[in-house]
Amino acid sequence: MSTDATVRTFVEQNSAGFVEDLKDWLRIPSVSGDPDRVADVRASADWLAAKLRATGFPTVEIWETAGGAGLPTVFAEWPSGDPDAPTVAVYGHHDVQPGTPVELWDYAPFEPVERDGKLYARGASDDKGQIFFHLLGLRAHLAATGRTAPAVNLKLIVEGEEESGSPNFAPLLHAHADRLACDVVVVSDTGMWNRETPSTVTGMRGLLAAQIDVRGTSGDVHSGSFGGTIPNALAELVRLLAQLHDGDRRVTLPGFYDGIVELTETERRLFAKLPFDEAAWLRTAKAPAAVGEAGFSVLERVWARPTAELNGVWGGHTGHGSKTIVPAEAHAKLSFRLVAGQDPTRIRKAFESWLADRVPSWIEYEVSYEGEGVRPCLTPLDHPALQSVTRALGRAFAAEPGGEPREILYTREGGSGPEADLQDVLGAPVVFLGVSLPEDGWHAPNEKADVANLLKGAEAAAYLWEDLAGNK
Amino acid sequence: MSTDATVRTFVEQNSAGFVEDLKDWLRIPSVSGDPDRVADVRASADWLAAKLRATGFPTVEIWETAGGAGLPTVFAEWPSGDPDAPTVAVYGHHDVQPGTPVELWDYAPFEPVERDGKLYARGASDDKGQIFFHLLGLRAHLAATGRTAPAVNLKLIVEGEEESGSPNFAPLLHAHADRLACDVVVVSDTGMWNRETPSTVTGMRGLLAAQIDVRGTSGDVHSGSFGGTIPNALAELVRLLAQLHDGDRRVTLPGFYDGIVELTETERRLFAKLPFDEAAWLRTAKAPAAVGEAGFSVLERVWARPTAELNGVWGGHTGHGSKTIVPAEAHAKLSFRLVAGQDPTRIRKAFESWLADRVPSWIEYEVSYEGEGVRPCLTPLDHPALQSVTRALGRAFAAEPGGEPREILYTREGGSGPEADLQDVLGAPVVFLGVSLPEDGWHAPNEKADVANLLKGAEAAAYLWEDLAGNK
Repeated sequence: MSTDATVRTFVEQNSAGFVEDLKDWLRIPSVSGDPDRVADVRASADWLAAKLRATGFPTVEIWETAGGAGLPTVFAEWPSGDPDAPTVAVYGHHDVQPGTPVELWDYAPFEPVERDGKLYARGASDDKGQIFFHLLGLRAHLAATGRTAPAVNLKLIVEGEEESGSPNFAPLLHAHADRLACDVVVVSDTGMWNRETPSTVTGMRGLLAAQIDVRGTSGDVHSGSFGGTIPNALAELVRLLAQLHDGDRRVTLPGFYDGIVELTETERRLFAKLPFDEAAWLRTAKAPAAVGEAGFSVLERVWARPTAELNGVWGGHTGHGSKTIVPAEAHAKLSFRLVAGQDPTRIRKAFESWLADRVPSWIEYEVSYEGEGVRPCLTPLDHPALQSVTRALGRAFAAEPGGEPREILYTREGGSGPEADLQDVLGAPVVFLGVSLPEDGWHAPNEKADVANLLKGAEAAAYLWEDLAGNK
Repeated sequence: MSTDATVRTFVEQNSAGFVEDLKDWLRIPSVSGDPDRVADVRASADWLAAKLRATGFPTVEIWETAGGAGLPTVFAEWPSGDPDAPTVAVYGHHDVQPGTPVELWDYAPFEPVERDGKLYARGASDDKGQIFFHLLGLRAHLAATGRTAPAVNLKLIVEGEEESGSPNFAPLLHAHADRLACDVVVVSDTGMWNRETPSTVTGMRGLLAAQIDVRGTSGDVHSGSFGGTIPNALAELVRLLAQLHDGDRRVTLPGFYDGIVELTETERRLFAKLPFDEAAWLRTAKAPAAVGEAGFSVLERVWARPTAELNGVWGGHTGHGSKTIVPAEAHAKLSFRLVAGQDPTRIRKAFESWLADRVPSWIEYEVSYEGEGVRPCLTPLDHPALQSVTRALGRAFAAEPGGEPREILYTREGGSGPEADLQDVLGAPVVFLGVSLPEDGWHAPNEKADVANLLKGAEAAAYLWEDLAGNK
């Protein structure tokens, strides 16, 4: 068994090399959204594969994805050797957002600069830095325990298309499901509440995106000749959409809230401990006021409550001046954010039943969906894997190694990336080990990582494999 | 005093020359909407002016309009000589719709053809034929009465921009208000219910067209990160617009129905006598069902009831696929059709008060209007001028001249052209002497006029001047 002091000392002693190596990786502009950077995404995968081999992973592979975009995933595996060891799959991504508009940066996006404990570069925090701390953490774990293989069967899956919407990720998971089989997924692509408040994510909302097309008449007609006597498709659609919420801003789909995993008293209490500055949050949201479902706080609403949101509406004359028509057609795009206990398929049915109950007989309509939808993911606070993450972070953020563990709070995310795919395809609980800070500027100019926090991530990873293996 | 037999005989004896002259005029393609036809519109005005002089009008003038489009109005005046004679202004227009698409015509649009009692040409019915019957009617009136001047002070104002939306008509009326001063306006630019059902129009709905622009946040934000916690401009607009009507499809603006001139029992009874084929009407309206304000028939709704109609709505993502945003802005164009007793200025205020009562404090909004709006016009059934029109038409459509007058029913129109300007600027009641038939195909290929009906129009005009002068 390691001592926490050994882990922390190892991490600190190797921090300079960690930063220099990470800078090398950050110099590769692996922008998956830029067709001119395809070779760079591959170079980034190759760089990571070489580092993983050098770290000791016996199996390291470059996996091509479907679709032919040439943006490969890196897979690595290091068996524990212990037949009882649990299997853990770590997820992250090595592709990055573009560095544009470069004129808004104080630094060149792909020429990393370290200043005042921050490492400035595109990808420093999202997500290369948070993948790379795992390599240091693993070395600390091995050094401090004297093991020659990790305490868990460790798998890494590092995607190359996450910033392009992970279009081929679910098929990739399906194709390699046997290789990726695991007991728990550790996602390292999220952040903490803030520098003073270490925390971990416990869940993400799912999504169902729909479009409704409504027809009232077979063509636009003159509102002077016919207005007030025939269906107005736009007015009918508006009347319909206005019923999506009741006076408490609850969604009116039948059974919408049935079976959802309600917040526990503990979760509400812990959410409430997060230092939440509503004014600052509203500035980020570009909003003049917090408005939402009655009976819930802002954070509860965005993390733990499902929604129906209008994303777009159009119909009739939308150009200059007036055109006095009764418009024949009207259209709306809307999306539902889903929470644990809801399923996109069931919500589809509820939406269709809601429509059937409300659309007048003289209105023709069609509903279509954007894909299958995304299932929500949530790991309960008392899940053993989440408890392990909590303990590992508590030890990493302790003021003194081996001292009083730091309190770790819980957050969620209102939207999801490919995390739900991991949960659904691999059939394993998802926990989150991420140490990014709100000010790190993901997707923005001057993206940076806090080096001390990346080292805390490495330290937490070192403890996590021990903890998950039961070697607390 | 004329005998009806004299008038009818005069009209019939001169019908061949009437048709030949009208064909001459119809050969001039006075399309006001086509910049290449500006000279033709002027030629049309000149042709009419010459005919009016030949008919005996002592004053005939070509009036240029503002805006410089070069589409002149023809003005003519023939004083009665009787100091007690009322003054009547006849309104119509000499410009026409385009003849396109010419391939949908069975005839060349500007080469008039007479076949089976119909005269086929663009403008045959809308509106040259209906202006031109006045010249024949006036000659019949003079011939039958032995007068050397009409029984009324007769003014004609024949516009050249009506098919282009009369953009300069109100200014023209204001500029020449003293020349146009009159006791009653006779509009000859409408039709009858159908061939078997002679009728006259008694009113037209007015209009107020508005746009509302709503802002919920200072920019679009991600619906995963913020959805369910901040204002969604589109949802707020939809919620607002859905309140425009109550469950009976009545408009909810405060005081919207206050002071409106309600249908009398006589009007409702006479409307109900019109042979109304709802299925045929719905085909024209391209509508699957008749839907409107509770408690009124279709015709009552479109002629005598005010409406609020959504003409266009837009906001958020309206392109391909889904974009999970909380949209910052949303927009709507809407228009109110107004009936007698309503005033666009008052409805503006009511709309603004309705908005102020309903828009949540966290939503910014702006309202703008398309011009000043159009006031409704209505002449009550018992108005002496309308009674004169009714009697004149009843005599013209009598089976035998001087025999039992034909019953004349009443219609209205759901929208208005420049008629309300005539009423408002000239301060005179507006009555309608039009003999077009629904099948005449205004604005459509194969426009035609029924020659017998044009002659009935001439006959009615001959009686009307006598009747209005009190020489019944």
